[in-house]
Amino acid sequence: MSDTREQILEQIKVQGDLVRQLKAAKESKEKTAPSGGGRANSSGVPAQQQQRQQQQQEQPQKQQQAQEQQQQHEQLLQIDEEVARLLALKAKLGGDAPPTNQKFTLKTPKGTRDYGPQQMTLRQGVLDKIIQVFKRHGGEAIDTPVFELKEVLTGKYGEDSKLIYDLKDQGGEILSMRYDLTVPLARYLAMNKISSIKRYHIAKVYRRDNPAMTKGRYREFYQCDFDIAGTYDPMLADAECVKIVSEILDTLDIGDYVIKLNHRQLLDGMFQACGVPAESFRTICSAVDKLDKSPWADVRKEMVEEKGLDEAAADRIGEYVRLSGGAELVEQLLADEKLKAVPNAVKGLEGMQLLLKYCSIFGLEKRVSFDLSLARGLDYYTGVIYEGVLKGESAIASPASPAKTSQQNGEPGSPNEPATVGSVAGGGRYDNLVGMFDPRGKAVPCVGVSIGVERIFSVLEARAAAGGLKLRTSDVEVYVASAHKGLHEQRLKVLNQLWEAGVKAEHSYKLNPKLLVQLQHCEEHQIPLVVVLGDAELAQGLVKLREVTTRQESNVKLEDLAAEIRRRQQAAA
Amino acid sequence: MSDTREQILEQIKVQGDLVRQLKAAKESKEKTAPSGGGRANSSGVPAQQQQRQQQQQEQPQKQQQAQEQQQQHEQLLQIDEEVARLLALKAKLGGDAPPTNQKFTLKTPKGTRDYGPQQMTLRQGVLDKIIQVFKRHGGEAIDTPVFELKEVLTGKYGEDSKLIYDLKDQGGEILSMRYDLTVPLARYLAMNKISSIKRYHIAKVYRRDNPAMTKGRYREFYQCDFDIAGTYDPMLADAECVKIVSEILDTLDIGDYVIKLNHRQLLDGMFQACGVPAESFRTICSAVDKLDKSPWADVRKEMVEEKGLDEAAADRIGEYVRLSGGAELVEQLLADEKLKAVPNAVKGLEGMQLLLKYCSIFGLEKRVSFDLSLARGLDYYTGVIYEGVLKGESAIASPASPAKTSQQNGEPGSPNEPATVGSVAGGGRYDNLVGMFDPRGKAVPCVGVSIGVERIFSVLEARAAAGGLKLRTSDVEVYVASAHKGLHEQRLKVLNQLWEAGVKAEHSYKLNPKLLVQLQHCEEHQIPLVVVLGDAELAQGLVKLREVTTRQESNVKLEDLAAEIRRRQQAAA
Repeated sequence: MSDTREQILEQIKVQGDLVRQLKAAKESKEKTAPSGGGRANSSGVPAQQQQRQQQQQEQPQKQQQAQEQQQQHEQLLQIDEEVARLLALKAKLGGDAPPTNQKFTLKTPKGTRDYGPQQMTLRQGVLDKIIQVFKRHGGEAIDTPVFELKEVLTGKYGEDSKLIYDLKDQGGEILSMRYDLTVPLARYLAMNKISSIKRYHIAKVYRRDNPAMTKGRYREFYQCDFDIAGTYDPMLADAECVKIVSEILDTLDIGDYVIKLNHRQLLDGMFQACGVPAESFRTICSAVDKLDKSPWADVRKEMVEEKGLDEAAADRIGEYVRLSGGAELVEQLLADEKLKAVPNAVKGLEGMQLLLKYCSIFGLEKRVSFDLSLARGLDYYTGVIYEGVLKGESAIASPASPAKTSQQNGEPGSPNEPATVGSVAGGGRYDNLVGMFDPRGKAVPCVGVSIGVERIFSVLEARAAAGGLKLRTSDVEVYVASAHKGLHEQRLKVLNQLWEAGVKAEHSYKLNPKLLVQLQHCEEHQIPLVVVLGDAELAQGLVKLREVTTRQESNVKLEDLAAEIRRRQQAAA
Repeated sequence: MSDTREQILEQIKVQGDLVRQLKAAKESKEKTAPSGGGRANSSGVPAQQQQRQQQQQEQPQKQQQAQEQQQQHEQLLQIDEEVARLLALKAKLGGDAPPTNQKFTLKTPKGTRDYGPQQMTLRQGVLDKIIQVFKRHGGEAIDTPVFELKEVLTGKYGEDSKLIYDLKDQGGEILSMRYDLTVPLARYLAMNKISSIKRYHIAKVYRRDNPAMTKGRYREFYQCDFDIAGTYDPMLADAECVKIVSEILDTLDIGDYVIKLNHRQLLDGMFQACGVPAESFRTICSAVDKLDKSPWADVRKEMVEEKGLDEAAADRIGEYVRLSGGAELVEQLLADEKLKAVPNAVKGLEGMQLLLKYCSIFGLEKRVSFDLSLARGLDYYTGVIYEGVLKGESAIASPASPAKTSQQNGEPGSPNEPATVGSVAGGGRYDNLVGMFDPRGKAVPCVGVSIGVERIFSVLEARAAAGGLKLRTSDVEVYVASAHKGLHEQRLKVLNQLWEAGVKAEHSYKLNPKLLVQLQHCEEHQIPLVVVLGDAELAQGLVKLREVTTRQESNVKLEDLAAEIRRRQQAAA
């Protein structure tokens, strides 16, 4: 507001009184609160102690403390809010007022970040290429809310459920932030009784991950999902998802990669063959999933010590998860005595055989690797699973990719092979998830893939930084400048003419900017053309058109300006 | 998972035991909880009653109840989660298992919605056009996290702060969902010490609005913001924002509109002239803001009865807020005895004069209306404010627009003039907001505009529905079909060839689909071309290419297929 100084002083007085009142109320509350020895009642036991005993029965003390803290916190927030208003009022006084007293660190929430124009330009370029691939395969876009009823997410993510962000209960529904785009898709399909769709969805998801554990990962990050829902013949849709991963990684040109393939049915069959009890399949699968970050010794320890698996069973698993290869490995495992006896293992292997055949038709023989150590963390997969991984140096550029030891074709955890780092895509088949939402359990089989765009951004950002590359962040084609004072209205007229003709144009927003400053702006922002207005030319219905890089100037008729700019652009393109 | 039936039954047993245990634990807890007459202690007063009395001092009973409910709720959620796992296991048994028992309504959270492919196609078309305008004016894109530290939002939204969504305190920072894109921009500028930028930001924002009050508004909705930050000469950037609103509404072609203009400095000066005490300016301004939804009589009542304003002062305000017009109204008010005496009013009017002049250079004379009833709800505006409003019939198509009585050029609230309904854009100048985040209070003057795309979507959706228009939701150019059995591998080969050539192509994902079904799919989905594979043609290295609408077929050499499809497209374009 731009009130008079007098009015502002009056408002400051009123607001100051309010803040003082609130602070006084808080202090008096703290003094009366039973934080020390409480008043004893007629039983001789301090009331506070009695209350505590009672409450330990009903609610853990921890929670009570948390509640007290929450109350105090809300009180503080109210005070902060009023203080902020007071400071805003004081700020209106300008130089006369004391500096505003920033009370909190200016930051984004832990695990989140802003995208500035440079990052947005790079990001939009990546997403456009990905969308092009999705559309080449007939994808349709959908979008869902950023939060869901908490019950929608409940029981879908296994051990990762603890990472879900919940919203505060402000009276009404209990909500959680989406954890991925797959569960919302399943809810959407069940809710709308859709039995087939090929959809893509690009949006942010939220995970309260421990940054100490998974360094460089964000708590808010983009996912880029493509899924094929519908009852189809085996592996046709699955193979197309693998093809999509390879097309995307090819078009983004981020370096050499491999797409690891495995099958949940084979994993379960393998666990059975190794002597894992059926009720432990999921938890042992979660342990195997950690092989991309931890050596086999650690994973084995987790299986045996934390998850109570028999040591011999763990060692048998260790023999299998070191294996990777192609069609010949499938043959070898189909002949394996232990696996041959387990129907699930045989079915999984037959599935792999078909998938590898289709991948070969799609020209992916050199790109895919059947890898028994690939497990993927999520509970809901029921068939094929896959993961696109950057190899060697392509991934080193990325500061966000976690270190990873190799377990390819060698002793699990041995560093003999070049390390593959940086998972940049992953997915698989989940045939039962939609049925979990349908009141009658009607299943809609699905298979899909999620592109890890954040890691791809990291790799490309690092590469751009290393090359000293600065992307243009605006598309301005022409800058309208004044050669001397008093031309701002003329500038607005010329700008209006250009905008109406669809030309991207800007000016300085100053009445009388210096010509040099205006020209420097164009060089800094890589704007290709400048229109320079001057009285002498305007009197003849002319303007100067200047090329910024060559500094060549020529006079153009004002009425032809937009057309001339179009001509220059076409010549430059 | 596809375990054996035996394994699944075993898993169901284990999981069933767990669920029964949890349910038993919950019931025993409920029995021991002091919900009826509690056990008396030695003082003769029931322990529970003592505890309650004690707590009334420390914390409101309401909050305690809320906490108990929360605990119960969490317990229920845990049970639900384990039940969900149990049901998932049972679902694996397929037809043998009892139907899964959906325990919650399948819905999106209150005030939110999914966007299906039809809506996304329309939406993307609208956003693309808007982005084109933003870029024409040199806009750069940024993005910020969906939530902020709660303190960032505190004290920025006045009476609307109660509508902010908070996240649950899960240990760590206290977070809130963004309420608009303006406060995050200010935080971004202060945090990164950016003193000038022209940025656009398209993202969802969150408001726990009361749907009963503002029917048809969503709690999660897209905002589309363009802001110009920097220290510039008066009204140059402001006028460009008004121009941007008009370009967007023109390009979207959603009907006749008016852009209402006003100035916060003038509003404050007017309040002062009418005898409103300085400390009531903001709250009276909030009341004026409701004139777009309520008649003057209701707003006057709020001012007098709720906000304690003198009746005579309210009536004087009523005289001014009925006024709207152009440059001549500015002249008239500059001559107004009461306003002339208030420096703020004069400054505001002089600002309006300059703005109207620049708007006239931009060809907007017929589009803008200086309107003294325009107030805008948010606290942070300090100068020009504006709002783009659809007129008459253009807005009637929108089921989302609230009914609005007119107060243009007549008795406030009188229905004499054609009602203008549906605000579709709004914004203004906020020169102090960035300074509130800077530790030294360094100000970065800003002016911006937010496009109400949700309302625009509503209008366009209603129009498309009325016209029976069905948008194409995928870009598939050619469908690859089999004329008879046994051709799926051939189909995959042809698809691969087309994808490699950049052609958007799909097939049925069935081994042996019926030709008729495949052709019907193409007609339903408006796919223009079909490649029909048959052994006879393939033996000669040929395929049939069929135009779906004309049903014309011709043989094409397989190796020329992609090129021939490109030729057809160029001919059709």
